[in-house]
Formats: sequence, C-alpha cells, structure tokens
Amino acid sequence: MQHTEIIKVLRTEPSLHEIMVRGWVRSFRSNRFIALNDGSTIHNLQCVVDFESFEESLLKKITVGAAIEVIGHLVESQGQGQAVEIQVAKIKVLGEADPEEVKRTILSPKRHSMEFLREQAHLRVRTNTFGAVMRLRSKLAFAIHEYFQKNGFYYMHAPIITGSDAEGAGEMFRVSALDPKNPPLDEQGNIDYKQDFFEKETNLTVSGQLEAETFAMGLGKVYTFGPTFRAENSNTSRHLAEFWMIEPEVAFCDLDGNMDLAEDFIKYVIQFALDNCQDDLEFLENRLLDEEKNKPQAERSEMSLREKLRFVLENNFKRVSYTEAIEILKRSKPNQKKKFKYLIEEWGADLQSEHERYLVEKHFKCPVILFDYPANIKSFYMRLNDDGKTVRAMDVLFPGIGEIVGGSQREERYDVLKQKMEVMGIPQDELYWYLDLRKFGTAVHSGFGLGFERLVQFVTGMGNIRDVIPYPRTPGNAEF
Amino acid sequence: MQHTEIIKVLRTEPSLHEIMVRGWVRSFRSNRFIALNDGSTIHNLQCVVDFESFEESLLKKITVGAAIEVIGHLVESQGQGQAVEIQVAKIKVLGEADPEEVKRTILSPKRHSMEFLREQAHLRVRTNTFGAVMRLRSKLAFAIHEYFQKNGFYYMHAPIITGSDAEGAGEMFRVSALDPKNPPLDEQGNIDYKQDFFEKETNLTVSGQLEAETFAMGLGKVYTFGPTFRAENSNTSRHLAEFWMIEPEVAFCDLDGNMDLAEDFIKYVIQFALDNCQDDLEFLENRLLDEEKNKPQAERSEMSLREKLRFVLENNFKRVSYTEAIEILKRSKPNQKKKFKYLIEEWGADLQSEHERYLVEKHFKCPVILFDYPANIKSFYMRLNDDGKTVRAMDVLFPGIGEIVGGSQREERYDVLKQKMEVMGIPQDELYWYLDLRKFGTAVHSGFGLGFERLVQFVTGMGNIRDVIPYPRTPGNAEF
Repeated sequence: MQHTEIIKVLRTEPSLHEIMVRGWVRSFRSNRFIALNDGSTIHNLQCVVDFESFEESLLKKITVGAAIEVIGHLVESQGQGQAVEIQVAKIKVLGEADPEEVKRTILSPKRHSMEFLREQAHLRVRTNTFGAVMRLRSKLAFAIHEYFQKNGFYYMHAPIITGSDAEGAGEMFRVSALDPKNPPLDEQGNIDYKQDFFEKETNLTVSGQLEAETFAMGLGKVYTFGPTFRAENSNTSRHLAEFWMIEPEVAFCDLDGNMDLAEDFIKYVIQFALDNCQDDLEFLENRLLDEEKNKPQAERSEMSLREKLRFVLENNFKRVSYTEAIEILKRSKPNQKKKFKYLIEEWGADLQSEHERYLVEKHFKCPVILFDYPANIKSFYMRLNDDGKTVRAMDVLFPGIGEIVGGSQREERYDVLKQKMEVMGIPQDELYWYLDLRKFGTAVHSGFGLGFERLVQFVTGMGNIRDVIPYPRTPGNAEF
Repeated sequence: MQHTEIIKVLRTEPSLHEIMVRGWVRSFRSNRFIALNDGSTIHNLQCVVDFESFEESLLKKITVGAAIEVIGHLVESQGQGQAVEIQVAKIKVLGEADPEEVKRTILSPKRHSMEFLREQAHLRVRTNTFGAVMRLRSKLAFAIHEYFQKNGFYYMHAPIITGSDAEGAGEMFRVSALDPKNPPLDEQGNIDYKQDFFEKETNLTVSGQLEAETFAMGLGKVYTFGPTFRAENSNTSRHLAEFWMIEPEVAFCDLDGNMDLAEDFIKYVIQFALDNCQDDLEFLENRLLDEEKNKPQAERSEMSLREKLRFVLENNFKRVSYTEAIEILKRSKPNQKKKFKYLIEEWGADLQSEHERYLVEKHFKCPVILFDYPANIKSFYMRLNDDGKTVRAMDVLFPGIGEIVGGSQREERYDVLKQKMEVMGIPQDELYWYLDLRKFGTAVHSGFGLGFERLVQFVTGMGNIRDVIPYPRTPGNAEF
C-alpha cells in the first residue's frame, strides 16, 4: 500500500477505501486526536483514534515529533476546523521522539523566538512558520524560472569561482587550495598563486552580470539565478554573506524596457504566490497580525500581508528620476526638521535607506523606480547620459525592504566604456573580454539584479533575512 | 516600433505589415542575402536586400558579427531552406565588427576546434554548436524544476559555504577572508580561524545532501539544484572543479522508490528535451553524424542522438545487484581475456568506468541501475542491509557517460549510524545535527545526486564536459 501526501488527502472526498498517511505528530489530544503533518502543506491531518482498540504501550509512543504511519478511512470530520479526518484502523510508530529530549528543542509545542529557531536550524523546517516560508521560497523560485522561460529567456549558470575582482560590487571571499599555513611564495615574497589550483588568485563571485552580458550578446535574452557572496561585516537583518540573486540581461533593450521588465516580472511572481500559496500566505498573514497586536497602533501596518501584495499588483510602479527625488527629499519634512540622519543638501548625494523609505512609504505610498543617478556614485558599466553627469541606472524600491532591484542600461559604446574604466581604475587587461562585446556587433542592452531573499522577505513578511534562507551565512556563522 | 524575436518571426505567416528584427549577421552573400541570428533559435532569418536601394557605405558595414536592425515585410521565401524571409526596406547598423579583427576570432565563418572555442568562451555562445548546447542546458534546467514542482517537491537552496568537511565526497576548496600572507595565528602557531569571517574554517560544499535530509524530514519531498565543488586535480573530459548538481531527498521512501524516482525523473527530462528542443537537437545530431564520418566504421555510434534519447525513454532501466554484476563481469570476455585494466577477481572490488561501460554498452545494452554495494566502498550514511556487508546504494549508469546518478537509502537507525560514524572516523560532534534527525521521529528516507553537466552531455552528445557549461573551472583555468 502506498502512502498519500496530506496535501492530497485534504482535497479528497471521504470514501470507504482505506488510505495510508505518514508524517510527524504535532499534537495528540485526549488520547484521541492526532494532528499529523508531513510537510506537504501547513495543515495537519486529524487522525481520530479509538484508544480502546490500541495497546497503551503503542499510544504512549505517539508523542510530539514522532514519525508514524496511519491507515484508516477518510471521513467527514465531526469536529470544527477541518473538512475531513481519518478514522484510524492501524498505527505504526516509525520513529519515536523522547519527550524529555523534545522539551529542549524547538519541536516542543510552544512559541519559540526566531533566534532560538536559528540555533536549531536543522529542525526549524518542522515548525509552522519556517515550513511556510520555505514552501513559499520554493514556489517563488519556480515562478521566477517560469516567468523567464515563458518569455523566451535562457537560463545561464554564471561561474561561482571567479578570477577577477573587477566588478567591485563588494568585498570578496578568497577561494584557494593552497596550504594556508605555508603557502608557496614567489621571488618577491608574495604568495605564488601560480601554484594554486587555478594557477591564479580566485574569489567567490559577487555578481554574474558581466558574464550574463556575454550570453545576452549571443542568445539575446538570458537570466542567471545562483548564489552570490559578500565578505562584508554587515550584521543586520537585511544582509547575508551568501545569498541568491536573479540577474536578467537583455540585448536590444534600453532602460525603459528594463523598467517594464522588472515591474512585469515582480508582479508575475507575486501573482503566482497569491494563486498558488494561499494556505501558507494566510498563516503568515495571521502570524504578522498576532505580532502586531503587541505594537503601539502607530507602528502597525496599514495593510495585511496579502493586501500589501495585491496593492503591488494593482498599482503602477512610480517612475521618478534621481533629480526629482532629490527635490522631493530636500523639501520633505524630515529633511526640513533635520530628522534624517543624513540630510539631503544637494544634487549628487547618495541616497540612504531612510530616504528611500521616505519616498516609498511616506511620499508616493507605492513601489518606486528611481532612475538616472549621478555617474560618480554608480558602477563603471552603466550607460552615460548625454548630460555627461548621470547614468542610466535604476533602483526599484519597495515598502518595508527598500531596494529590491538594482539595474541599468549598460554602456555599449566601446570608447566611452574604455574611458570610464580608465577614469575609475578598472583593469582593462583583465576585462578584455568585456570590452570585446563592444567591438564585435555591440548593441544597446540592459539588465538588473534582484536579491532573492529580499523578495522572499517581502512576500512572507519576515522581518529578518536569516529566516528566509535554509542555513544563513553571516559574520561568525556558518553552522550546519 | 518593437522588434520581434526571430524564433517568433519564423512561425509567423507572411503579411503586409512591416516587422522589425535585430540580431547579428552570420553571413552576407552576393550583397543580397543576410543571414541574421538573434540567439532565440538556431535558425537564421534570411533578409533579402535590394542592393540598389541602399548606400554602398552602409552595405559595407554589414559584415559577419555586426549587429543590425532590419525593417521589412515578411514574405514567402523564394529560395530553399526557409519558409519565410524578409524583404528589407530599412537597415540600421547598430554595432560594427571590423572584418580584420573578426578574422582572429571564433566568429569568423569557418570550422573551429572546440579548444579554440574555449579560449574565446566569451564569444562562443554566438556559434551554432555552443548556442544550441546552451539553449538545451536552459531547457533541461527548467524541465528539472518542472518535474519536481509538479510532483510535490520543494526546492531547497543548500548552503554553498560550509563549516564541515564531514561528508568526505572529495577534496574541498577553502573559503577565507583572512590576509593570506599574514594570517593570524593561535597560541599553538596554527591559523586562528576564530578571527576569520565565519569564526571557523570554511570550505565550498561538495554536496547539499546532508542539509537536504534535514529538510526532507520536515517538508517530506525536497530537491536541491545548485553548484558544488571538488578541488581534485582531474584534468579529464568528465570532470569539473565547479559543477551543478540536483539532489532530491524523500522522506518515507526506500531504495525501490528511489530507483523509480530516478528513472521517472530522467525520462521526464529527456522527453521534455525531445518535445521542446527539436531544432537544436536536430542540429546537434547532424553535427555528431558529421563528426563520425571521420571515424572508422567500428567506432561509430549505432544510434543517432535522438534515437539514443528515444531508446532511453522506451526501455526500462535494468536493475542489477552489485553481486550479480560482479558475476557477469567475472565471466565476461574482457575479464577472461585480461582486456580490462582492472581485472575483476572477487566480490568487493570497486567498479571502474570500464566495467560500468561494459555492463551498459556491451552486456545489457540499456541504462542500468546497480544496487546493494559493499558497505566498505560506500559512504557512512548509506543504509546497512541485513546481510551486514552491503548497503542500499544505487548508481544509474548511462551509455557513453557512465555514472549519471548516485544515491542511496539513508541509514535512519540512530545506533547503526552512530556506530558506522565511529568506525569510519566521521566526527559526531560536528554532525550532531545529522544524528538529531534520527533522534526525533526518524523515518526511512532516500535520495540521489545527478550531475547536471553529465546529463547535458548525454542529451547534447557533447564529448567534453567543458563544452556544456558557460565558463568551465578546471585545474589551471578560472578565466572570465
């Protein structure tokens, strides 16, 4: 006899056929009601036991965390809270869970802090909250692939180990197979990376963009979806040392097309979540409402989780130039009253999180796309505007999380790119292949990067980025 | 006016509306026929130019590799080889390509060696062969996600940077942010990793299996699809230092279920390729036929590429125990006549590639699943059989490429696992979390790993694994 997943059982009509289910005990009330969960859904299956028909020694083993197999009829539920339940005919205990040991874990049936859950990250997927978040994460990842594949993009695996530190997106981790204690030295007394595995110094990638550009200039429309790394000592609720990034890159596409793509893409993915993850979203929404009850009225969200998601779908992202944004910020109350930590005094200032949040949450009250930033605060590969001082960069800003997408139209003119690399100190010999793209049939092209965990945070409403990835890597933490 | 992708244009009925296309010139014959490719498909679009209507200075710029924009009517083609073509009304050169420079690149229109293509890996996606392989790679990756998501699996991102070297699947790359020349030392004179970014020694993962098991024991059915690493000095056509792996892990599933899953999964993905990648497969099939013309008859394949793929679909994978396989190999001609490099003399021998290929290509002539291997040649986490000497391991062997899948039923019994770890010297304190899975509701579970590049090799017929990944990482090579 094959077992049936609980997500399917809950959609099944009651019948006289016996079915088999397997899962982990979430609770066992009154020696009668087992709440069984197998991870396929947030919902437990109620298994009703006639305790007189079973050995007491067996029933004693049905404790929180134990794995069991149940055979019985699916019937209409007599109780509240579920349409169907199982009248148990047979029970088999597959794996016990010592109640004394369970007490010390996050499996014990009470509310645990998110910090405690992180300490036992190998068990937290068995909790309602983290299980829901991980199911959503999976669905969102698939929605991303589906969106791009449906729209004629090709998926590209950018290299993880890279020989160049050229992009300058952040501090990098070194990758080496040399003896760290006694590395070979060259004649100058420097480490002789020629003797390392790759015969050169190598790092973990901070972005697959430059390689994605090489592919866009051959396949037309591509996207990456892979891990990227930052060796930055940012111990915040918004930063990870290892995170997953999506980077589409499109030939023959300018910045307007890029903004259209980013908006269409994000809306597709959010719509997919609303359509396919109702149960988990409902649970997470209620979780947030519970959490908010402890907050003062003024700090509570104006919208519930799903209202917030629908709001994003129903509104056009407001497109605002950097120059306009500076004007708005200069005139804003928090600037006038010196409430910003960094006051906006003149054009050219780099925007901080507080400014982005003001624009999104207070001024426009909707997602905002800022574009045409000052050239000198942005990367070398962004296309210079005719004004000579701004570049075709864009950032998509979301309520609650700030920047969710950063992108640009790329500088496709060989001479302009070369000159910018010179001025900004980017090594041209190392990036000869990037310059080559501008030598052989160059074309307007654009792309952006979306931090996957930021998206998962937004859709699940989780406050800390460490709680939306299976095993977070942060300063001082590479457990499991 | 928006441009249309060539893959769509080729499926369009001729009409009087003008359309716009953009792409790269593959050839320009007789000042009249431009073959234009935009990467959306292997096929070029023929653009027919009335050269008297255009400036000679413009026509001169239409050279191989140049990016151009063409506007015109789509008409029924007068020539052979295509159903439709464009009667060109307007041409714009977007990016030139100096013919003298192009001559030195793989863009020049002649046959180049795969080695030369690898040297210019940033341009090779513009060639027919590599373009076809990369489109197929993308489709195969999507088919993998689709298969698992349709079947109720949740996608899990296993960590890339890992603090444990416990699995022992291979040599690892070290990840560090310490100053490599002057690393801090502890009192014993060893490197003080407590001062490193993660406050411990860290490496790049060789497998996400152990972490996937933690997720399977909560979500039920999960899969990973991410990069994995081996710092092994294997300079062969079958090995990469960085490659992508798919690792499903299923709770309540035994080895038979695991074999069913592997077979069903591989067949789904191959069927998907046959259904969705006909043009690229046809091209690659003809490429192989061309290549084989230079080989002696005896070395040529018995089947064309697509015949080989259909053969896999139409036959059950033959399931053979290790013990049976040893008997077959012992009695085999190459063993009797001492043609094997490693002769099979007794039960317990580790099978080499030559043996696997004999079984698949000569004896059974179909994909083979070997199972129940000797415990001492397999990993600590594989479930011990009642005979006390074999484990529930399985390898799926494919013609031409050998092992494509390796998996097992996992040892779910706490005491047995603990004892095996002791015997095999696996640190239990480091893997306390892995042991915990057997303490709290343990259950039968199984999984396997599939090397993505091996699969892409099989489906595309490419001989060298370096030619099925965008930027291969191998000993001495981390370019681009």
